[in-house]
Amino acid sequence: MPEILMGIGKAGLKESGAPDLLVIALPYPCTASFLFTDNYFKAGSVIYSERIAKETEKVRALVINSGNANCGTGEEGIVHAELMAHRVAQRLEIRHDEVLVFSTGIIGKPLPIDNVLRAIDDACSILEPLDLERASGVISTTDSFPKFDFVRKGELETFGFAKGAGMIAPSMATMLSFVFTTGDLDYETLRQLHRSVNERTFNSITVDGCESTNDSFGLISLGEVRADLKDIEDQVFEVSNTLAKKIVEDGEGATRVIKVTVKRATLEMKAREIARAVANSLLVKTAVYGRDPNWGRIASAVGSTEFPIDPFSMKIYMGSHLLYDGKPHPKAEKLAKKYLEENKEVEITVDLNEGKNSWTYYSSDIGYEYIKLNAEYHT
Amino acid sequence: MPEILMGIGKAGLKESGAPDLLVIALPYPCTASFLFTDNYFKAGSVIYSERIAKETEKVRALVINSGNANCGTGEEGIVHAELMAHRVAQRLEIRHDEVLVFSTGIIGKPLPIDNVLRAIDDACSILEPLDLERASGVISTTDSFPKFDFVRKGELETFGFAKGAGMIAPSMATMLSFVFTTGDLDYETLRQLHRSVNERTFNSITVDGCESTNDSFGLISLGEVRADLKDIEDQVFEVSNTLAKKIVEDGEGATRVIKVTVKRATLEMKAREIARAVANSLLVKTAVYGRDPNWGRIASAVGSTEFPIDPFSMKIYMGSHLLYDGKPHPKAEKLAKKYLEENKEVEITVDLNEGKNSWTYYSSDIGYEYIKLNAEYHT
Repeated sequence: MPEILMGIGKAGLKESGAPDLLVIALPYPCTASFLFTDNYFKAGSVIYSERIAKETEKVRALVINSGNANCGTGEEGIVHAELMAHRVAQRLEIRHDEVLVFSTGIIGKPLPIDNVLRAIDDACSILEPLDLERASGVISTTDSFPKFDFVRKGELETFGFAKGAGMIAPSMATMLSFVFTTGDLDYETLRQLHRSVNERTFNSITVDGCESTNDSFGLISLGEVRADLKDIEDQVFEVSNTLAKKIVEDGEGATRVIKVTVKRATLEMKAREIARAVANSLLVKTAVYGRDPNWGRIASAVGSTEFPIDPFSMKIYMGSHLLYDGKPHPKAEKLAKKYLEENKEVEITVDLNEGKNSWTYYSSDIGYEYIKLNAEYHT
Repeated sequence: MPEILMGIGKAGLKESGAPDLLVIALPYPCTASFLFTDNYFKAGSVIYSERIAKETEKVRALVINSGNANCGTGEEGIVHAELMAHRVAQRLEIRHDEVLVFSTGIIGKPLPIDNVLRAIDDACSILEPLDLERASGVISTTDSFPKFDFVRKGELETFGFAKGAGMIAPSMATMLSFVFTTGDLDYETLRQLHRSVNERTFNSITVDGCESTNDSFGLISLGEVRADLKDIEDQVFEVSNTLAKKIVEDGEGATRVIKVTVKRATLEMKAREIARAVANSLLVKTAVYGRDPNWGRIASAVGSTEFPIDPFSMKIYMGSHLLYDGKPHPKAEKLAKKYLEENKEVEITVDLNEGKNSWTYYSSDIGYEYIKLNAEYHT
C-alpha cells in the first residue's frame, strides 16, 4: 500500500483542548470524488471545496478542522477555507487546487484563522503514517467513539474514517467521511460508484432528521491495484456501510440501532421514502427507547408519505415477530417487547406485498440523553 | 342561536374511566364540510366518515369516541364505525347517512363495540345544550387542558372545540376539531373556505412532525345568519387559528410555543416549506427548550428544503433581535437568550429578502417530558 501520511495540530477549537486539526497527505495526486451536503446554507469550507472539486479530478491533500463548522460566517468563511488550502499547499509544496478543506463543529462562530494556520504549520511539520483511529478522533465533535474500517481481499484494500453523531439525516448531515481504495478507477467510474454507494449508505441513515451544513464524503482511489469493478464496489460499500452504521450507533444518546427495511414495494423510490418516514419518526424512535412494540406508530409513518399503501395487505414485523397483517396480533407484542429489550440492533420490516423493490435505512432511538445533549450544547 | 345538543357517555376506553363518548345533535341537517388526514393508513372511522361525507353535503349528528383510534383494526374497524352511526341515527330518529363518526386514541386495539353502543344509548338518552369546554374534555386523550373558542360579531357567531397534543404535524395529525358558524353558506363556498382556512391553521402546526391516522376537521354552517363572506371567513379563521394554537400550546411536554414566520419569499409554497422545515426541526425545538438562541440550527433548517436560498442575503430574527444577516451578530445572542427565557411564545422570523410571500407555522419545543410521555405511553 502506498503510504498515506497524516499530521495533527491544535487550533484551540475544542473546549477540551484536544487535537482539532488534521492534514492528510496523499503520496501523489489521486483520482477522487467528493459529495457535499444538499443544504443551501453551506459552510464556507463546503462552498470552497465544492468549487475546487468541480474543477479537478485529482486530490493531493485534505485539511480538516473540528470544533468549528466555519458556517454562517459570511464571505470571510470562504476566504478562511482558501487560506487553509493555500497554507497546506505551501507547507507540503504541492498545488493549492489539489487541497480540499473540511470543517465540522459549531455554526456561526468565525474561525480563529491565525490559530488554525499555525496548527496547519504544526501538522505539516510532523507527518506520520495514517492511523485511521486517531484520524477519526481528531475530526470528532460530539462523537463518543472513533469510526473507522479497513477491508482487504488479496491486494485490493479499502479503508476509511468518519465522524458524526448528531444532525444526521438524509443528505448526510454533520458527517465527514473519507474512504480510500487501492483499486484503480477512472474518474467517471469512481464518481458513479461513489454516488450509488452514498445513496445506500450515508444517505440512508438518520439520527434526528436534521440536514447539516457541512456534510462531506470523499472517495479516493490510490490507483495501485487493478481489480474487478464489482470487487472494488463491494469493498467501498462495505467500508461505507460500516462507517454509516457506526454513526447511527453513536447517535446522540442512542440506546438502540433501528434497521428499517421496506420490502416488496412497486418502486425503489417508494420503498426508500417509506423507510425514511419510519426511520425519521420521532414517535417510533421514542417507542423503541421505551421498549414498546408500538406498531401503530410504524403504520402511521408508513401511511404518511406521498405514496399510497394498502393498509389491509401490508405487514409489519419487529424482528421475526409479525405484529400486523391487516389486523393486529396482540400475542406477538409481548415477544416483540422482549426482542426490543434484549437486542442492541432492532429490525423493523414493512412488507408492502405489492412489488419487488426494497430499501434499508438505519436509525437510532431518541431518549432523555438526546434532549440533554441538544438542549445543553450551547452556541 | 339554534340549539346544538350534546350527549355524553362512557364506554370504558380511557384508563381513567372518564367520559369517552360524545354525541353532537344538530337542530336540523346543516351544510358541512369535512377534511380528513392524508395518511394512507387511515382509521376505520375515517374511512367510513370520508365515504359518507363524499356522498352528502349535510350533517345532522356527530359521534366521537376518545381512548381508542379504531385504527389498524382491519375491515372490522369500518363495520364498527358504521354500527356507531346507525345506532346514533336510530336513537335520535334521524338518517344514518347524516351521522359522521370520529375516533381518537390508541392504534391497533379493536373497539369494544358493545360497550361503545351502550355508551351511545346513554349519551342519546340525556341531551343537553352544547358546552364547548365539556365537549373538548370528553374527546381529549393526552391533552392537558380543553380547547375551545367562541367569537361573535352582531348576530354572526362562530365557535368550536378540538383535541390534540401529540402526533401533530402537517396534515393535521391526532387532532379532531369541529367549528360551527351561524353564517349561511352554500356547500361549495363553505368547502372552499374550509380548505383555505385549514391550510393556514391546522395544516400549519407541528408538535412532532408525525402525521396521524385519525385527523379530522369539520366545519358546519348553521345557516341562520346572512353575513358577508369575508366576515364569516374571518371568524372561521380566528376560531380555527385559536384552536390550532391551543393544540401546539399543549404539545406534549412543551414549555414554549414557537411561531415561525418566513417572509419575503418568491413563492408562497417556498415560504411554507421553509417555515415547516424550521418548525419541524428537532434541533431547533431542543435549542428553544434549552433557551439557546442557536440560529445556526435555524439556518441549517432553512437551507434543507428543495428551495434554494441565498445564505448571504437572508436574515434571522428571534423576537426583534437580529441574529444573522449574512454574518453573525454575537452581541444580540445574549438578548435573544433573555427573550427565550422570558416569553412563553417565541417568534422566529426568517426574512429571505427576495419576494413578497410569507407563511407562519406554529410549533412547540421538545424536552424531557415529551420523551417521558412518548416512551412510556405504551400500547
